[in-house]
Amino acid sequence: MANFKGHALPGTFFFLFGFWWSMKYPLRHRWKKRQHGTRQSLPVFFNRIDLIEGSLKIFFAFVGIMAEQFVPDGPHAHLLNDEGWVKLMNWQHSTMYLFFGISGIADVLSVSSLSVPVGLDRLALSLALFIEGFLFYFHVHNRPALDQHIHSLLLVAVFGGAASTMLEAFLRDNNLLEVFRSSLAILQGTWFYQIGIVLYPLNGKEWNQEDHGNIMFITMCYCWHYAVALLIVGVNYSSVWWFTNRYGGKQRTDLEISLRKTNQSDSISQKALLQESDEE
Amino acid sequence: MANFKGHALPGTFFFLFGFWWSMKYPLRHRWKKRQHGTRQSLPVFFNRIDLIEGSLKIFFAFVGIMAEQFVPDGPHAHLLNDEGWVKLMNWQHSTMYLFFGISGIADVLSVSSLSVPVGLDRLALSLALFIEGFLFYFHVHNRPALDQHIHSLLLVAVFGGAASTMLEAFLRDNNLLEVFRSSLAILQGTWFYQIGIVLYPLNGKEWNQEDHGNIMFITMCYCWHYAVALLIVGVNYSSVWWFTNRYGGKQRTDLEISLRKTNQSDSISQKALLQESDEE
Amino acid sequence: MANFKGHALPGTFFFLFGFWWSMKYPLRHRWKKRQHGTRQSLPVFFNRIDLIEGSLKIFFAFVGIMAEQFVPDGPHAHLLNDEGWVKLMNWQHSTMYLFFGISGIADVLSVSSLSVPVGLDRLALSLALFIEGFLFYFHVHNRPALDQHIHSLLLVAVFGGAASTMLEAFLRDNNLLEVFRSSLAILQGTWFYQIGIVLYPLNGKEWNQEDHGNIMFITMCYCWHYAVALLIVGVNYSSVWWFTNRYGGKQRTDLEISLRKTNQSDSISQKALLQESDEE
Amino acid sequence: MANFKGHALPGTFFFLFGFWWSMKYPLRHRWKKRQHGTRQSLPVFFNRIDLIEGSLKIFFAFVGIMAEQFVPDGPHAHLLNDEGWVKLMNWQHSTMYLFFGISGIADVLSVSSLSVPVGLDRLALSLALFIEGFLFYFHVHNRPALDQHIHSLLLVAVFGGAASTMLEAFLRDNNLLEVFRSSLAILQGTWFYQIGIVLYPLNGKEWNQEDHGNIMFITMCYCWHYAVALLIVGVNYSSVWWFTNRYGGKQRTDLEISLRKTNQSDSISQKALLQESDEE
Repeated sequence: MANFKGHALPGTFFFLFGFWWSMKYPLRHRWKKRQHGTRQSLPVFFNRIDLIEGSLKIFFAFVGIMAEQFVPDGPHAHLLNDEGWVKLMNWQHSTMYLFFGISGIADVLSVSSLSVPVGLDRLALSLALFIEGFLFYFHVHNRPALDQHIHSLLLVAVFGGAASTMLEAFLRDNNLLEVFRSSLAILQGTWFYQIGIVLYPLNGKEWNQEDHGNIMFITMCYCWHYAVALLIVGVNYSSVWWFTNRYGGKQRTDLEISLRKTNQSDSISQKALLQESDEE
Repeated sequence: MANFKGHALPGTFFFLFGFWWSMKYPLRHRWKKRQHGTRQSLPVFFNRIDLIEGSLKIFFAFVGIMAEQFVPDGPHAHLLNDEGWVKLMNWQHSTMYLFFGISGIADVLSVSSLSVPVGLDRLALSLALFIEGFLFYFHVHNRPALDQHIHSLLLVAVFGGAASTMLEAFLRDNNLLEVFRSSLAILQGTWFYQIGIVLYPLNGKEWNQEDHGNIMFITMCYCWHYAVALLIVGVNYSSVWWFTNRYGGKQRTDLEISLRKTNQSDSISQKALLQESDEE
Repeated sequence: MANFKGHALPGTFFFLFGFWWSMKYPLRHRWKKRQHGTRQSLPVFFNRIDLIEGSLKIFFAFVGIMAEQFVPDGPHAHLLNDEGWVKLMNWQHSTMYLFFGISGIADVLSVSSLSVPVGLDRLALSLALFIEGFLFYFHVHNRPALDQHIHSLLLVAVFGGAASTMLEAFLRDNNLLEVFRSSLAILQGTWFYQIGIVLYPLNGKEWNQEDHGNIMFITMCYCWHYAVALLIVGVNYSSVWWFTNRYGGKQRTDLEISLRKTNQSDSISQKALLQESDEE
Repeated sequence: MANFKGHALPGTFFFLFGFWWSMKYPLRHRWKKRQHGTRQSLPVFFNRIDLIEGSLKIFFAFVGIMAEQFVPDGPHAHLLNDEGWVKLMNWQHSTMYLFFGISGIADVLSVSSLSVPVGLDRLALSLALFIEGFLFYFHVHNRPALDQHIHSLLLVAVFGGAASTMLEAFLRDNNLLEVFRSSLAILQGTWFYQIGIVLYPLNGKEWNQEDHGNIMFITMCYCWHYAVALLIVGVNYSSVWWFTNRYGGKQRTDLEISLRKTNQSDSISQKALLQESDEE
């Protein structure tokens, strides 16, 4: 899939997941603060969302593997023929999808009623990102300087995401890490597009692969992509906040009124609430 | 031991230990949840198992050192002769076994009644893995490209295992880390076999050591090995879960009945139990 | 800005921020210990200081970006002309300032009444430092040995600061980490001056860029800079301590007297106080 | 000090400190368990020991700096003369001693009644080790292969010690980390001797600097040194344990008797004690 589309496709997926996460996690965080409770107080609604997310990951991974294998110029599930290895690139991409599929299975298991270790979903996602980076690392060998550099930059987002997601397996429900992961996923998504645009320019004008200026620009451009990713995450976070305040506000007021009524008797829970709003 | 057998032997050990761990830790975890207690509530049975495991490690390490030294073409405990160093490879393997033996001693001490620092067993295992990786790292110098690459890939599992086991020294009894370690041990085991097969092919047909396609395939193959390792760990985990539910089920039901009886008086312990099942 | 002034300017900023932090954090720490309370007991005064600090960061970042763009030999907001990329160095510096500006925005949001994730301010500062190091890393390619070495040394302070600030996002209000960050900021500040002095000597006598002795001296000199930074931080810490004891002392004595009075009734809070002073 | 003595001297210091720590920390740990209390229950005795230790570090660092400067072939506090830099090696060693001196000052401040941040002593020691490794890293450039390798191996102990000591700044009073640090200090000590023996052989027979066998042996030899370091730490730990049980035993029995007497009334503290002995 060495063309623009081949980079736009995974880019779209990473972008959409990052965008979706940057709304899901703040929303869940708000909900939990409202209920000032533990994980158990999350409505079935959120569990169902995680289930759908996991299922989608499995589905897309499966479709991705099939597509890589059975596109007209794919290996059609042949690994070795008389001339040697068959279409190793497609096999490598299939392997990457496989691990994202495993991550999807871990997501589904984690929200099911089965007894899996706490944090399995994040560990599996971290492994999927690590495997992606691991394969990309050896992928870019023996290529022109710019091609190699632009793929190496991707690894910063990939390994950064793997490390931060690994941390999430131990620091559960840390809103900051979840938002950070969202931003790195968006970065990956937009950077895949950038790679496609640079290596397979739409206007047909090839970039000079050895020009030092190009490499310097691309490095800086990567930072701009991240600034945009942070902006998107920030806007989504604020929207969720504004939205929950606007349409969830009535509920809060009711709560406050009822608290005022029970002012004398129930001072402990009020303190807990105050502490909560101070933490905000 | 530069032959197929020389790689199959350590591979078998790592595989067996990984396989065994992937059953022991979930079983112990289940047991502890049942007893909803602390470490003290673990039966003597589990302590005895750890004792046997440690003793086996010491025994195998000792046998390994002896074998490396006194095989017909071994150094027979001579380090230096008139021509220089004698069979440094065998000495290096002996050194690796030595540290796994030390790890076995730490295991035995940790379950004994002596007062050793908490986490000593995991630190010692982490050190043994680090020393293994450390010696392998300088081991593979000056070899053909494929040979070097296939050994370097091993280091990912070795150093990954060292890091994750080091973490276990501080995050005690973290089920996720224990399962992760099991999977990395299985990966090491099967990869030792793969190294043996590639470098000393059973059908006698040598692999091209410099072909880039071979290196790309081997990198991907490594990921497949890990996918298989995850599958094995997952199947063992599920089996333990199913088995303990099937044959340990009666006990649970009894517990639930007795809880229902004491419904009014003993609401606190019930809450603890509920919380527990929610965590599952 | 490849001249002495171009290095002195950022150096001054880093030095001033480090110097300021090395007074602010001990002061805040002292205050909190006095009130032996949680974060909520901090007076509005400290929040206002953080707000001003954040606003200054935004302001200086904006001024910095404008200056880099519209100095006489700047790119004047042109990125590409007929000859290729325009003044990429200035664009890179603008990008660095941009992320420090984002860090300023995060500071302001964190002290506002809005609900941002806990630790956002530190994560944003960590990212700003990471981006600075990231751009510098590719910045110094293809330069003479001494130039490259002296910039690489800067990266130790930059990435060290990024890592330690990232840690602060999770270990909130850890006085040791805050002091450590102050010392690294001062180191960066003075080292920028050193770079300016070495590469653009005021007396006009150029340093030999390839002399191994120069490189050895510069490495050692870097350690001396850090020793001085530690000294400055230590002096500031002691001054704050002495100052708060001297002028905040009356308050303490009053407290002690009132405690002695309530000796019989209020033994618990006294214990808490004792524990506190033991910790000192 | 490029001779055997110049390596034996720092080696002796590191060995002695490691040996001393491997007795001090287990002893303190035992004491604290006995008193089943917090840090405050440590007798003044231990504070005094830390004070002496810190003072010794300052004294030796001062002596070391003076010696490096004013040995007959030293720089005599001249940094620059007409021919260029003067004796940079001696200046580098002085710099290393300086930071160990700073670590000594931090030790003294930490046990004094002044209010320094918790963990400052460990952070300062970690920095001293980091600076040592940092200077060594650029120290070994442009040397023969064996010389470079044998010094690089030292860095594993140095940076390992820096990382583990940094961890101690946050995981206070972790017995495992303290024992680990002791073992790494002993390793450094004995390895300095090994470097001296290899580079300046006592029997005058030079080692072949380029022989791959020598490099392989040295790598393995390093692991043996660590095995010996672990043995020393283990023997010291056991000795302290045996000694405190033998001569501190009477006290324990008294405690147990008095507990039995207060069996009915004081069940909570007994539970705490039981929990404690189970943890052992």
